[in-house]
Amino acid sequence: MAADDEHLIEHATGDSQLLHSGWIELRKDVVRLPDGSEATREYLRHSGAVAVVPLLEDGPSLKLVLVRQYRYPVQKVLLEFPAGKLESGEDTLLCGMRELLEETGYQAREWAFGGEIHNAAAYSTESIWIWFARGLQPGVARPDSGEFVETVTMTVAELEELCDAGQLPDVKTQIGLHWLQRWQAGKMSLPWQTAALGTAL
Amino acid sequence: MAADDEHLIEHATGDSQLLHSGWIELRKDVVRLPDGSEATREYLRHSGAVAVVPLLEDGPSLKLVLVRQYRYPVQKVLLEFPAGKLESGEDTLLCGMRELLEETGYQAREWAFGGEIHNAAAYSTESIWIWFARGLQPGVARPDSGEFVETVTMTVAELEELCDAGQLPDVKTQIGLHWLQRWQAGKMSLPWQTAALGTAL
Repeated sequence: MAADDEHLIEHATGDSQLLHSGWIELRKDVVRLPDGSEATREYLRHSGAVAVVPLLEDGPSLKLVLVRQYRYPVQKVLLEFPAGKLESGEDTLLCGMRELLEETGYQAREWAFGGEIHNAAAYSTESIWIWFARGLQPGVARPDSGEFVETVTMTVAELEELCDAGQLPDVKTQIGLHWLQRWQAGKMSLPWQTAALGTAL
Repeated sequence: MAADDEHLIEHATGDSQLLHSGWIELRKDVVRLPDGSEATREYLRHSGAVAVVPLLEDGPSLKLVLVRQYRYPVQKVLLEFPAGKLESGEDTLLCGMRELLEETGYQAREWAFGGEIHNAAAYSTESIWIWFARGLQPGVARPDSGEFVETVTMTVAELEELCDAGQLPDVKTQIGLHWLQRWQAGKMSLPWQTAALGTAL
């Protein structure tokens, strides 16, 4: 934030927990607005999530590894980059390695951090940290109990076609594709680092 | 969904309301998983939102109209395309016109629907419908009581620079920029329609 953003910022003056059920913690804070008046802000506390954009070199062409998963709140099977919630205190890279392995069976030799996004900043503390992975080695998926996911691979052009046809509604997948295009065009840099295979086991 | 997605789909067998406070309605459903076992799904019911990508022809160059707004849950001032929640039964185009006018003072002669995204499909029913607007006429912003927003304009190149530097974390803004690039490259079509000025008043 800029130093002169005080005319926009809200300050907490009190808070209460409305509900804590399962992984969901709902909070209500009393805040002082920039004009000195008070308002309440209700929001979810979320541990954050990691999404992985897995680049699969398949002969001469680049393919992407994605999963198809039923998302109950929106009642749709969505096509998504592999992702999952951070466990308490977990490093975002280790979380990415774990989720990629669990959902698709792949492990990666190289990883690069793409960036952090806020997907519901109006009512959730959630950040999604997006990692890129390459040098993929196939293996056996180990989904969590009660998790049904299907791995699919497709070319960048195929995913772009879905995007252009309005058939890629998942935000982290849209943004992963966008950043991949920016990187391929030499506009965005990805600081690749080598990871020992098996780190996430 | 494909007809053969039954191995992924979860069916509700019971539901309950956990909490209804302010605009937040938190629900917990019991679902039957594809393997016949039961699980619970906790999620927010959200009325949906509309975001607007406003294209401002400023002499020879194209500029974009954005807002800077403090987002309490993430404790940051975010740069975003104008957006807001749908009111009950509201048409997404009328909502886009209303939010653009309230937050920035602009009205637009032409509108085109870009698409629908799901920003938190794991725990919220929210859709964000993204509209594009052009033929902008300036006016006076009319923010809601307790809403502090600051209008800024920038070129597409300036917004791309922020994206490439990791300084554009808001998902609807990332995706609006992505779709604008796809449209400018002739990859995505935008079905422009004329709107009478003053429709949203």
